[in-house]
Amino acid sequence: MIETMSDKEMEELLTTRCYGHLGCLMDDGRPYVVPITYAYGYNCLFSFSFEGQKIDCMRSNPDVCVQVEQALEGDRWRSVIAWGEFEELTEEQERTNALTLLLNRLWNEGVKEHSIFVPFRNSEKSMEAALNDEGCVLFRVNIEEMTGRYEKYE
Amino acid sequence: MIETMSDKEMEELLTTRCYGHLGCLMDDGRPYVVPITYAYGYNCLFSFSFEGQKIDCMRSNPDVCVQVEQALEGDRWRSVIAWGEFEELTEEQERTNALTLLLNRLWNEGVKEHSIFVPFRNSEKSMEAALNDEGCVLFRVNIEEMTGRYEKYE
Repeated sequence: MIETMSDKEMEELLTTRCYGHLGCLMDDGRPYVVPITYAYGYNCLFSFSFEGQKIDCMRSNPDVCVQVEQALEGDRWRSVIAWGEFEELTEEQERTNALTLLLNRLWNEGVKEHSIFVPFRNSEKSMEAALNDEGCVLFRVNIEEMTGRYEKYE
Repeated sequence: MIETMSDKEMEELLTTRCYGHLGCLMDDGRPYVVPITYAYGYNCLFSFSFEGQKIDCMRSNPDVCVQVEQALEGDRWRSVIAWGEFEELTEEQERTNALTLLLNRLWNEGVKEHSIFVPFRNSEKSMEAALNDEGCVLFRVNIEEMTGRYEKYE
């Protein structure tokens, strides 16, 4: 039986996880799906990427969708879909705040939990250096709408 | 170091896995991302869904994107992104062929491998019954373009 998640449950899932799948639009209007690592806070998903197709797409069309899931005991699952707007973080203070949040979440919790697509695993220093690199785009998704579901045993 | 996958490697990844993330477009033009279970064959991804938003979206706009990933030993990963066209399977023979492929892949291999979002786990019979249900839409994504990457240690 599939049940709807409350706002509190959705927020808790986004906070607990740091890995999801982002959908955006390419210039030709087709969808594009890529895995992302993120840190949730302030009703936003903070994330980063090196310059490339994903960033080009989001700059052209900032409407994005991020889906985050979690396997629970007994083969049950829960999943949140969040829609929002891509916003590039260019101001020094914004970048520093995002970086601090990302380092805390991905280093202290995320890296140990998720083994896939979490870059810069070798040391916190190299991760910080990479995220501070000019080629690394820091951004946030300002969440506008969310929906969440989970499987419940009867 | 990120390397590009060959056609053979991408096909092998899609065959090995049965779980990915599908992106499609909603009527208002925003992207929509959902997990799917699939079976790869004949340059198509065969899948199923009960009637709902995902099916409505793909009927309105058949351009979809499916991303499939795999964690490898030593924290390495590989990932394929496939773009293609949604096609609903309505003819009896097409439905039977897709059903056979899905049951073989998800039952014989997939269910044991992936614990999340594989429905009808209790018995092959109940899965077959559910997929044969009139409310269950069988469809395929006819792949038109693929790209694949993997992380290589130096």
